[in-house]
Amino acid sequence: MPIRLIDGLISSPVVADAFSDRSLVGAMVAFEAALARAEAQCGLVPAAAAAVIGEVASRFEPDEPRLAEGLRTHATLSIPLVEQLTAAVAHRDQAASSWVHWGATSQDVYDTALVLCLRRAWSAIEADHLRLLSSLEALSVRHADTLMVARTLLQPALPTTFGLKAAGWLAAVARTFRVWSQAVEATQVIQFGGAAGTLASLGKEAAQVEQALAEELDLAVPEAPWHAHRDRFAQCVAAGALYVGALSKIATDVSLLMQYEVGEVFEPGGGSSAMPHKRNPSACAAVLACGQRMPGLVGSLLAGLAGAHERSVGAWHAEGALLADAMQTTGAAVGTLRQLIDGLTIDDARMRQNLEATGGRLLAERIASLATPRLGRARATELVKAALAEALRSKRSFRDAVQDSPELLASVGSDSSLFDPATYLGAADLFRRRLLAFALPGSHTH
Amino acid sequence: MPIRLIDGLISSPVVADAFSDRSLVGAMVAFEAALARAEAQCGLVPAAAAAVIGEVASRFEPDEPRLAEGLRTHATLSIPLVEQLTAAVAHRDQAASSWVHWGATSQDVYDTALVLCLRRAWSAIEADHLRLLSSLEALSVRHADTLMVARTLLQPALPTTFGLKAAGWLAAVARTFRVWSQAVEATQVIQFGGAAGTLASLGKEAAQVEQALAEELDLAVPEAPWHAHRDRFAQCVAAGALYVGALSKIATDVSLLMQYEVGEVFEPGGGSSAMPHKRNPSACAAVLACGQRMPGLVGSLLAGLAGAHERSVGAWHAEGALLADAMQTTGAAVGTLRQLIDGLTIDDARMRQNLEATGGRLLAERIASLATPRLGRARATELVKAALAEALRSKRSFRDAVQDSPELLASVGSDSSLFDPATYLGAADLFRRRLLAFALPGSHTH
Amino acid sequence: MPIRLIDGLISSPVVADAFSDRSLVGAMVAFEAALARAEAQCGLVPAAAAAVIGEVASRFEPDEPRLAEGLRTHATLSIPLVEQLTAAVAHRDQAASSWVHWGATSQDVYDTALVLCLRRAWSAIEADHLRLLSSLEALSVRHADTLMVARTLLQPALPTTFGLKAAGWLAAVARTFRVWSQAVEATQVIQFGGAAGTLASLGKEAAQVEQALAEELDLAVPEAPWHAHRDRFAQCVAAGALYVGALSKIATDVSLLMQYEVGEVFEPGGGSSAMPHKRNPSACAAVLACGQRMPGLVGSLLAGLAGAHERSVGAWHAEGALLADAMQTTGAAVGTLRQLIDGLTIDDARMRQNLEATGGRLLAERIASLATPRLGRARATELVKAALAEALRSKRSFRDAVQDSPELLASVGSDSSLFDPATYLGAADLFRRRLLAFALPGSHTH
Amino acid sequence: MPIRLIDGLISSPVVADAFSDRSLVGAMVAFEAALARAEAQCGLVPAAAAAVIGEVASRFEPDEPRLAEGLRTHATLSIPLVEQLTAAVAHRDQAASSWVHWGATSQDVYDTALVLCLRRAWSAIEADHLRLLSSLEALSVRHADTLMVARTLLQPALPTTFGLKAAGWLAAVARTFRVWSQAVEATQVIQFGGAAGTLASLGKEAAQVEQALAEELDLAVPEAPWHAHRDRFAQCVAAGALYVGALSKIATDVSLLMQYEVGEVFEPGGGSSAMPHKRNPSACAAVLACGQRMPGLVGSLLAGLAGAHERSVGAWHAEGALLADAMQTTGAAVGTLRQLIDGLTIDDARMRQNLEATGGRLLAERIASLATPRLGRARATELVKAALAEALRSKRSFRDAVQDSPELLASVGSDSSLFDPATYLGAADLFRRRLLAFALPGSHTH
Repeated sequence: MPIRLIDGLISSPVVADAFSDRSLVGAMVAFEAALARAEAQCGLVPAAAAAVIGEVASRFEPDEPRLAEGLRTHATLSIPLVEQLTAAVAHRDQAASSWVHWGATSQDVYDTALVLCLRRAWSAIEADHLRLLSSLEALSVRHADTLMVARTLLQPALPTTFGLKAAGWLAAVARTFRVWSQAVEATQVIQFGGAAGTLASLGKEAAQVEQALAEELDLAVPEAPWHAHRDRFAQCVAAGALYVGALSKIATDVSLLMQYEVGEVFEPGGGSSAMPHKRNPSACAAVLACGQRMPGLVGSLLAGLAGAHERSVGAWHAEGALLADAMQTTGAAVGTLRQLIDGLTIDDARMRQNLEATGGRLLAERIASLATPRLGRARATELVKAALAEALRSKRSFRDAVQDSPELLASVGSDSSLFDPATYLGAADLFRRRLLAFALPGSHTH
Repeated sequence: MPIRLIDGLISSPVVADAFSDRSLVGAMVAFEAALARAEAQCGLVPAAAAAVIGEVASRFEPDEPRLAEGLRTHATLSIPLVEQLTAAVAHRDQAASSWVHWGATSQDVYDTALVLCLRRAWSAIEADHLRLLSSLEALSVRHADTLMVARTLLQPALPTTFGLKAAGWLAAVARTFRVWSQAVEATQVIQFGGAAGTLASLGKEAAQVEQALAEELDLAVPEAPWHAHRDRFAQCVAAGALYVGALSKIATDVSLLMQYEVGEVFEPGGGSSAMPHKRNPSACAAVLACGQRMPGLVGSLLAGLAGAHERSVGAWHAEGALLADAMQTTGAAVGTLRQLIDGLTIDDARMRQNLEATGGRLLAERIASLATPRLGRARATELVKAALAEALRSKRSFRDAVQDSPELLASVGSDSSLFDPATYLGAADLFRRRLLAFALPGSHTH
Repeated sequence: MPIRLIDGLISSPVVADAFSDRSLVGAMVAFEAALARAEAQCGLVPAAAAAVIGEVASRFEPDEPRLAEGLRTHATLSIPLVEQLTAAVAHRDQAASSWVHWGATSQDVYDTALVLCLRRAWSAIEADHLRLLSSLEALSVRHADTLMVARTLLQPALPTTFGLKAAGWLAAVARTFRVWSQAVEATQVIQFGGAAGTLASLGKEAAQVEQALAEELDLAVPEAPWHAHRDRFAQCVAAGALYVGALSKIATDVSLLMQYEVGEVFEPGGGSSAMPHKRNPSACAAVLACGQRMPGLVGSLLAGLAGAHERSVGAWHAEGALLADAMQTTGAAVGTLRQLIDGLTIDDARMRQNLEATGGRLLAERIASLATPRLGRARATELVKAALAEALRSKRSFRDAVQDSPELLASVGSDSSLFDPATYLGAADLFRRRLLAFALPGSHTH
Repeated sequence: MPIRLIDGLISSPVVADAFSDRSLVGAMVAFEAALARAEAQCGLVPAAAAAVIGEVASRFEPDEPRLAEGLRTHATLSIPLVEQLTAAVAHRDQAASSWVHWGATSQDVYDTALVLCLRRAWSAIEADHLRLLSSLEALSVRHADTLMVARTLLQPALPTTFGLKAAGWLAAVARTFRVWSQAVEATQVIQFGGAAGTLASLGKEAAQVEQALAEELDLAVPEAPWHAHRDRFAQCVAAGALYVGALSKIATDVSLLMQYEVGEVFEPGGGSSAMPHKRNPSACAAVLACGQRMPGLVGSLLAGLAGAHERSVGAWHAEGALLADAMQTTGAAVGTLRQLIDGLTIDDARMRQNLEATGGRLLAERIASLATPRLGRARATELVKAALAEALRSKRSFRDAVQDSPELLASVGSDSSLFDPATYLGAADLFRRRLLAFALPGSHTH
């Protein structure tokens, strides 16, 4: 099931697989097989019937056009799927077919199948995530001492290191991935409530079947069926949006650092049909396109929380596609960004040059701070502003302008390192190390 | 290119076709062929070359896996597509291949192709829309006199007619479709600006080529290339969301009217895997699922308006998939709703019965109004409230309670039609006819 | 600072207070006072200066019009506030004024102040939340055996209990509040990074000042300044939306149960200007209005995650108002819902009557299940469907129709409780108790 | 009613006034006065009563705390307001008080009042809009020949003019304002349907009263009451988001052009608490903060379209605050941007310098195009790429590298203007003039 070209940038093939027809139908029949086995364990279903159901399920080939048609008629895939599976079992063993889907409802099989697809998608994404973490860690370690301009409001603020910047990226990616993984973990429960969430047809064995079913599927038992309370899926996508947001932030920064006028980092690849000389932030663009999609998907899922009674009209029906979209978008973002970071080129020299091009102005705060104890803040600020203005006017460096101010000079001294940005990094490396330790608690490379 | 099962309820096959790989690539090569012809007309490209390009384009079969790969590398489909088309032309005529994509940029071909796909999708949707209008009109005409309860805040308010309700649905659908169609129409312009929106490589012939290209593609010429200003696409999707909102409102109402305890209308089909007796609002659910998606898609497109400079990083790259999603969702909503309305069953008797079950209480406003001129509002309201309370207490009808209030009776008279809801419809039919005339100005059936 | 009437339904007075000018400015000066004390502890600032700053801060009265003007000029409140505070300190002690805001930047004071306002807002909300939990628990306990119709897709499905329904509400509210509280907790860290996130001007004492500042404010120290990584605030609002979603779900259910045709529960109050007899779901409407706002607020915050470099342009500036909106909306929702639940009237008799009005049809699943082992599912389903159809046709109950089917009767027996919904509740009470235990682990009333 | 500091950047004082308590209540009593007069004209209400109502309304002073309390009880402001107004009229003339709000419902007065507030807000915004258009036009005219780098994907693409860029901004602002104004215009209709949209209590005079009421308020008569169909308000906010998007795009561009490394334009003002030398894009930040809010507001309004029956529960209640928010955000954005553009400084020399710093590379497309007819595209592209690579390698200009390629030189000639960006602007000025003519059809300055 290939990805449409129009969706190419916002889809991940491996994650798309997790929500393919094959995967979704596979998860649904796996639920039915597990249910039959669980019920057989509890004496509700004949063991022989469960065995047949399991065997037929394991080799089940759906009639997809009829599934699609049934889906449109019933607004759920479960009805036509259970019909087809029942027919397939009946074809093999008429008696066994009576026990297919025993005690369950459409929502049970579909919700639990989505949960299983989510797990598969998450695993695919985690692989890329872990590689991204390693790459970011390596960047941060390698550039622990690489000086660059820190920019606030897109303006140069103070010196910092690229190592700290990369560590900030890393920690945000790690932190939001944890939040997201916990949210995904919270979804890993069976949905099993029968027609209205009471498991009425199972009688006293309900809890026992629940437990056995959960074990069969390697899922947990929730406090109760959640047919009417959909916060788990919404939380999963909302947390996914935090993660994609952290990825997008890197793409924003890289695309800005790649500007011709800045030129500090470069992603691999890129290119333009009309201008052979351009080096485009193509991967950044793809990641940011993913980032732009997520808030909308979150909003749509959140809007479904207020659904009616024991199964909502519409909100439930919207979830599957939204979940699949969100996971694919997440997978595409991290997959693309990982490749970007793996191939990222850092131009240390240009970083240093951009820092120096500010003519010492980034150290104005230092000069003002140093002068304040002796001159008072008001006077210190006044003199520093005058020096900055003079530097601007005469197109000289701030350093030179300070040399011309005897009052400032007397207050701050003439230590030659005063204007050396490498000596005005404060806690940059402390923060860098703390961020790495936070992001990769077990790693010893930093 | 079949629709994934997980997307089945929120996709329309005909609209999906409009954004299929075949359709998108077809529109892109159509742009290139039209461009070559337009430039040949203006003497910029040899006529023979344009002919070859046109011919090769008309039978072009892309290597889709390589397109997908190129898309991921360049974050645009245009680069690999132009490469493949150029190679195909070169295979036929080396000299002609120099003139493929002459003066254009990636964004020109992709944006214009999206515009063409939008047109195709809109046409498919319009067909369903027109049938929906007819069905709603017929409902409204047939039920011009069908009495029912009007419900505000989900509570019975006053008598109304189903004909008025259907006319309100119809007019909202017609009104929002007009807004949407104007927004779609506004997108029907070529994108043609060359590498940076100046058509630099075309020299003085730029305007002439623009005009010829637009004619070739049956599109308009915009005031200037819109590579950096994306309001047209965002407006199109935002207006589409208004339309889907109007469709969803019908689905909300139908699903509520289908409640067992209300039972006034029924959609065809439905069914439950566990409960053979249920008649589910399945089509309503599908329409509402579509409605839940649209605000998110709108938000994502709106977020892209503030893109950077002459082509944004990410926002542009997000658009195609969002547009395709939005159009498919719109198409699914109207296609499903049309079928629902075509098969809608109205239970006039139950409507009447629900009206009568309110025991005349819906006419309390009438009694209060009639009594006010003689008693003053304060006293009239007091007496009516007392009668309502008495009716509630004694489980009698409001009518009976009024009979027991000599003061009220004296003020309102004993006209037997006082409690006949059919005589308290106000301007219901006037509004119904005005709504029909608004929605279908040329129709004479109403 | 009164709430505007137009915002009345979506605002909570106590939460509004937490983001009032007084509260916000108070939190900002509290930061400055705490910073001076922390720096005095670490020997960076003279103790006397810190004392003066603390004292002036504790009685600081801002010039609000000039604050508002400065905010518009600088796009941050911090600059005019620090200016005013500095002037106030200087008025008292010129020398001390040099040490105001030492080493900090605008974002430090504003972000940390937002964190403090969030804490205050959360506490106000928690109070209502805890009362809501108790009320819901009481409802669930009181109605453990109150039979009612479970409705899926707005159609009667099976019998359930109102106690289970209330327990489901309770657990969803408790679960999402926990997720939200963890997210709020995650925000409870200082922001302290200086001009560019390196605390450059503090030298080696940076970490020590961080620690002391956090202790002063009773906040935690984050792994590093988070000026550029805003996931904490976005997570807080996204999780808040889950919570409001769980509250809204209750409002949806109550408003549907209040329908005249259903009439199972009633909220206190309500009323209509034109129809004195109506009992409106007014509180439900207010809660649902809150619910409708949250997804948009979440989307706006998520969109800001991809901000540029060390402080973004715009995304940072949008946060405060979005956070305040989100917290007020949350507070309004829970405050309103708590009152609604406190005054909720349950009509057990009507619930039972609606259940009986389905004529036994809700037990069709039971009959089909019981008949399946003997007849096979195909035949059992066929007979049950026939009985349902016959009941519908002859306007009799399903029970009577089953009595007329010898084959069914023979399979299911004639136990008089077969059609007693109280005997077909499955695990309803087990689930109810599990939900209560989950929601209120320490409670012993259930 | 001052704006909260936390909302300072996203609020416009004049627009806030339009939704203040005074304005909203004023519009509501204006509706009641107009209704009484209209009904008096049609003989439904005694002329004397209408006169009293009008007079009392014109001097009405609400008890705001009781209004706020009544709003919370009834979930609508109309009920307490009509009560207070009725009491005020009764205090003056008991008989007249019977005729207050005659035939109307809560929604009539509130919706129509919102419509009136919208008009007032729109007018305030239009004033800023018109000044913005003039400023942008002046910029575009003044800089018709100011050369600068066009940047796609944040990379230099080709030469363009700042005049064209400003014209693109202008046209997008003008185009979206038109779309928005049409949407606002579409809202300018009365809401008048009585308790359930039938004007039942007015009898045959309904249409006449409608007409008279609309004339009194200078509004149009819609095809029918729109209590249940809310597309007009949603369209208004969605279109407003397009407009704010066009404003935000300018803020994005300005903030990027203000980067220290680019330095081509500067907004007036700005400043940093810690770094006296910074010139911050403060106004850009405020505009972008507005832009970030709008998609969320649109989403929330769109979500309300699918409301239930003749008046929805919640969706209607959410609208007022969302509309007010959206209008204030729009007003803040245009007000701030207008000031920004009025004070924008353009550094032509830096623009030129940045263009030249690309070393002729931006003309690679021209060279390739010129060489293609003689060499074929493949060879031409190959040679140009080689020259670009050589320039990069040897740190020379592209121009010099071309001089070293005899094959290229022979194909493109040695015209000295080949590398003059001023001669490679294509249709830039044509587009600029078309955009101005589109945006300001009546203006003759361009």
